[in-house]
Amino acid sequence: MTDLPARQRQVTLARFPQGVPVPDDFVVVEGDVPGISDGEFLGRTLYLSLDPYIRGVISGRHLDSSPLGPGDVIVGRTVSEVVASNHPGFAPGDYVLGANGWQEYGVSDGTGVRKLDPDDAPLNTALGILGMPGLTAWAGLYHLGEPVPGETVVVSAATGPVGCMVGQLAKLRGCHAVGIAGSDEKCALATDVFGFDACINYKTQDLAEALAETCPDRVDVYFDNVAGDTLTAVLRHLALGARVVLCGMITQYNADGAPPPGPNLAPVIGARATMRGLVVYDHQDKEADFLRQCYAWLRDGKLAYREDVAHGLEEAPEAFCRLMRGENVGKAIVYLT
Amino acid sequence: MTDLPARQRQVTLARFPQGVPVPDDFVVVEGDVPGISDGEFLGRTLYLSLDPYIRGVISGRHLDSSPLGPGDVIVGRTVSEVVASNHPGFAPGDYVLGANGWQEYGVSDGTGVRKLDPDDAPLNTALGILGMPGLTAWAGLYHLGEPVPGETVVVSAATGPVGCMVGQLAKLRGCHAVGIAGSDEKCALATDVFGFDACINYKTQDLAEALAETCPDRVDVYFDNVAGDTLTAVLRHLALGARVVLCGMITQYNADGAPPPGPNLAPVIGARATMRGLVVYDHQDKEADFLRQCYAWLRDGKLAYREDVAHGLEEAPEAFCRLMRGENVGKAIVYLT
Repeated sequence: MTDLPARQRQVTLARFPQGVPVPDDFVVVEGDVPGISDGEFLGRTLYLSLDPYIRGVISGRHLDSSPLGPGDVIVGRTVSEVVASNHPGFAPGDYVLGANGWQEYGVSDGTGVRKLDPDDAPLNTALGILGMPGLTAWAGLYHLGEPVPGETVVVSAATGPVGCMVGQLAKLRGCHAVGIAGSDEKCALATDVFGFDACINYKTQDLAEALAETCPDRVDVYFDNVAGDTLTAVLRHLALGARVVLCGMITQYNADGAPPPGPNLAPVIGARATMRGLVVYDHQDKEADFLRQCYAWLRDGKLAYREDVAHGLEEAPEAFCRLMRGENVGKAIVYLT
Repeated sequence: MTDLPARQRQVTLARFPQGVPVPDDFVVVEGDVPGISDGEFLGRTLYLSLDPYIRGVISGRHLDSSPLGPGDVIVGRTVSEVVASNHPGFAPGDYVLGANGWQEYGVSDGTGVRKLDPDDAPLNTALGILGMPGLTAWAGLYHLGEPVPGETVVVSAATGPVGCMVGQLAKLRGCHAVGIAGSDEKCALATDVFGFDACINYKTQDLAEALAETCPDRVDVYFDNVAGDTLTAVLRHLALGARVVLCGMITQYNADGAPPPGPNLAPVIGARATMRGLVVYDHQDKEADFLRQCYAWLRDGKLAYREDVAHGLEEAPEAFCRLMRGENVGKAIVYLT
């Protein structure tokens, strides 16, 4: 432990980014190194994580966070070394994973902080594949996507810390893993370093064709980090019973103004919701239960129905057209009796 | 059983509908009453069901069906009385649920046909709440939506045979049931006859406001029959852990030309897929398992990672902007050491 400086560098928001952020949206300033009260410790930042969700925080679109204002230190996860402590659980020399943001020193009371042992793994991995991005991949793939060996797993943003773990965890589970990324360099990284079976460059390849070629049995699990056109294309190539994990929407993070048209799935992520496609023909095995219960309910006056009746076959076309115009009230039916 | 006529009326496709169908797209023609071979029976149509999926069949958009051509008899489910039989399982006088289409008589070999007992329920209900629409509601709500008592269930096209059953089954399960329909008359039917707690007229009310008012605890199960703007609005009002059952897309059935922009969820239905929103903060309880396994995999060389390193805090803004432009390769991280 060395003598602590009185001043430190910090990066704050200079102005709100318009669309894709530019460096001038930020400014490096000098500020005090804060003192510590009882139950707090001071950490010196060793590694700072840059992640797309930070763009959402700046705009106040990340879950329930309020937007940053000019002058605020930019948020971010950090690996720090404890350099001074009034906290019984943390001593100088400890390494900790926290969220001190874009500054050289930060104070913490230990909430949400995890100690790191450099013997477990390189400290910097705690911000990547063994940190929040890694847990995202682990929980999303193994607990929501639930692939079984032999299934096909596709992930977008395949060389990011989430995507590369999804691909590797898929391979370790015995799956066929296909990535989607935005350059030939990234695609080579995906296949050569991360072991993906294939990687599609969505900027130069036709996604539909490339998916058909690389996923001949279609897609059992799609781990979506990007939303937009890539999501639309993969949805068209799903296998029966596929699972789609909605994790990120990178294509939308820079967006200003009105959301793109069509169903916006961002609230599905926020609500941790499940969307399931229903085709009744799959559920024939439930018909006996259904009828037993509903015959009884109908007889007991617990079920009502209403019909929109046409009389005679020649009335069927007009009745059908009324139905398709939404003008029928009740079940549309033609009585031929 | 009466003497059989030699000729019958049928309704065939006159021309392909453009957008919303009009009666002139159909034509009433006369055809032969077919004879029956061994193992077949002839049914006289009593009731013909008109359903929105028929629009999809006509256009070849219903699951894997090929489109109808001019001159083809329009498809549809029917309740018939058996009037002649060379089939050991069916005798004249039997009532059957089948799919003879828009014609007065139809031949069947019994495949997919179910006998009906008029003592169980009125025969016509076999085309509605006790038929495929009813089973759709039963399977979709109870087996995919899985509401528990006290939860809020919302269904669109609330007075159709599917929607009215979803609402009634939700009430019978002890849920708060809210419908969405397209006229005050339909809304009154939903609340007064089907027992919905409330029904929103999406043509005259602001959906967001009306959902906030009628679903103060937000929406636990949304049973979607319509897609489009209604789906988008309900997604914004989901409760944590909500389930969305994608059952129909009535707003799209009349569509010609290019699909609407944004993610098209029709393939999610076709694939019987599940889409789930992932927020990693919910999965902290899996971190210990994740780390135990992945520390070991990393030590054993079974996991790779790649970083896109910036050196020093003052490089963070440019590195973050590169990340948001998608130009980084690997996990973006700032080394302050």
